[in-house]
Amino acid sequence: MSRFLSDNLKGMIPYVPGEQPKITEYIKLNTNESPFPPSPYALRLARQAAGDNNLYPDPECKALVNVACERFGVEPENIIFTNSSDETLNFAFYCFCDKNTGAAFPDISYGFYKVFADLYGIDCKQIPLKDDFSIDPDDYIGLGRTVFIANPNAPTGILLSLANIEKIVKGNSGNVVVIDEAYIDFGGESAIELTKKYDNLLVVRTFSKSRSLAGGRLGFAIGSKELISDLNTLKYSTNPYSVNRMTMAAGQGALLDEEYFASCTKTIIENRKYTVNRLKEFGFTLTESVANFVFAKSDRIGGKELYTALKEKGILVRHFDTPRLKDYVRITIGSIDQMNALLKAIGEIL
Amino acid sequence: MSRFLSDNLKGMIPYVPGEQPKITEYIKLNTNESPFPPSPYALRLARQAAGDNNLYPDPECKALVNVACERFGVEPENIIFTNSSDETLNFAFYCFCDKNTGAAFPDISYGFYKVFADLYGIDCKQIPLKDDFSIDPDDYIGLGRTVFIANPNAPTGILLSLANIEKIVKGNSGNVVVIDEAYIDFGGESAIELTKKYDNLLVVRTFSKSRSLAGGRLGFAIGSKELISDLNTLKYSTNPYSVNRMTMAAGQGALLDEEYFASCTKTIIENRKYTVNRLKEFGFTLTESVANFVFAKSDRIGGKELYTALKEKGILVRHFDTPRLKDYVRITIGSIDQMNALLKAIGEIL
Repeated sequence: MSRFLSDNLKGMIPYVPGEQPKITEYIKLNTNESPFPPSPYALRLARQAAGDNNLYPDPECKALVNVACERFGVEPENIIFTNSSDETLNFAFYCFCDKNTGAAFPDISYGFYKVFADLYGIDCKQIPLKDDFSIDPDDYIGLGRTVFIANPNAPTGILLSLANIEKIVKGNSGNVVVIDEAYIDFGGESAIELTKKYDNLLVVRTFSKSRSLAGGRLGFAIGSKELISDLNTLKYSTNPYSVNRMTMAAGQGALLDEEYFASCTKTIIENRKYTVNRLKEFGFTLTESVANFVFAKSDRIGGKELYTALKEKGILVRHFDTPRLKDYVRITIGSIDQMNALLKAIGEIL
Repeated sequence: MSRFLSDNLKGMIPYVPGEQPKITEYIKLNTNESPFPPSPYALRLARQAAGDNNLYPDPECKALVNVACERFGVEPENIIFTNSSDETLNFAFYCFCDKNTGAAFPDISYGFYKVFADLYGIDCKQIPLKDDFSIDPDDYIGLGRTVFIANPNAPTGILLSLANIEKIVKGNSGNVVVIDEAYIDFGGESAIELTKKYDNLLVVRTFSKSRSLAGGRLGFAIGSKELISDLNTLKYSTNPYSVNRMTMAAGQGALLDEEYFASCTKTIIENRKYTVNRLKEFGFTLTESVANFVFAKSDRIGGKELYTALKEKGILVRHFDTPRLKDYVRITIGSIDQMNALLKAIGEIL
């Protein structure tokens, strides 16, 4: 800390990203990336776009917006692209919370929500998950706060039904409800259609998981034109060109190559089912995940011990050292070879 | 504006980027981009990196940091890479200003400084430039505020000497002085060496101008390890992975291809000299710019009229419609063909 640090940041505890090992021999099952490379068409467009990098990108991302509108059935005024969904979420906290309007989110969810709230001095109510790690929608009615819910939730992968999402949105008509759908493509039903009915619903998405573009940094949000306009006010007050040319082109390719997308997500769902069954055979208890990861614990080994033992065998998973999560590990669903290597290692460890 | 917009953003006037025309037939001399494509080596590395886009980038940008440390003679703890220098500047406002510490900058400078200050409710003192558009260093001593100075300044291109920069840094030992060197490579002397002597100096740089990577979005800052640590606290509290894989690789290539960089900047400096001389022959008055643009006015035509007449001829320059700037146009220095097209058009208009 320098002697110049502003009061805004004193005592700030930043987000801790998952390990990014320099040794590529690790089997990386710790940050919920796709095991598959970007779509060949996305790659081709990104590489073409690189040649024009001497010129600023289009801050409105018009070409990408048009492709996304076609894909998701919305109008250009209802969508904003950002440098990852983290940027959208950051914007949503600063746009829709202030000293009068706090934030509310589950006590166990994406760790960044608390960081954003702390960053802007936003009061936040962290609502405990039920004993089975599920969200009780009744806990989220009429809170008078901006609500943030990851659906499916992390690190549990548990999905809230669209009916329950709608109940929460209806029950907070005076406040924005942000549904973070980072993992929706692996078995969930998106709330995008509901944005046409409710002006207080913002759906946030990322290209980092199902679209194989974590390295490119691309996210977006869909909502009423007023919500999107507010987010644009902040985008144009911080970094209007935050989405670079290559990623913008890759994003178009990823959206247009529906066949590749369908094939990748189908494989992940199959590999998840296979992994869950095998882990159950080993005696693991798992939450019902519809994401590209599973959340598992064993009576025979602690979460931290399993994490450490797997790391020694060259496999990275994620462990959260907090009271309710410490018995578990979160395991990204990768390719079938990666899953078999994981299962073999677990067999040896147990 | 939605009915949910936070008090933080009510009445906010965002930055207005220069026009990004969709019609590529325009000769674009309005946003100070490089007329030259990225270095072939930068392109090769960026295209290679695209294949790994399914994996998150390294949030510490280690490989790029190492190359930059070699290039600029600093240690890894003294440098941070961000998604463009706008992101660094945004961070510097939130990190080093608050309700007790305001900001100070010239009344005529990069328009984004005022936007950042407004965004965070930071009190700001805008210090008038002298009649000749130069900065008087004595105006910037002991202000008790965080100081932001673009050197060379925009849109004038006028350089403050290193001795005067040092005077300002010494004269504000209790506050951070941010020197924004976006245009330093076209004839100025960098203050990077001074960061080793003064813990309150932060030098901000971009790859958008001399490195031909405006489309890639890459910037960085150099300063004491404490200042850099503060900026990292904010980076890890907003968007740790804001620099994507392809741009990180392109940045390395751009720094390693010194020959290409030297050739491009030399050409811009030659083209600037040529353009200045020809504009003077037309009777234009110009500030003494050492940037990749010139700032020029004519007694024979108003700034807005010239901007409009050039646009009709397919040439975009930038006009600022404020009392002290309205007689001028800012013209980016492009290739010699672009400059000749501009001069021919101006000849016809006059």
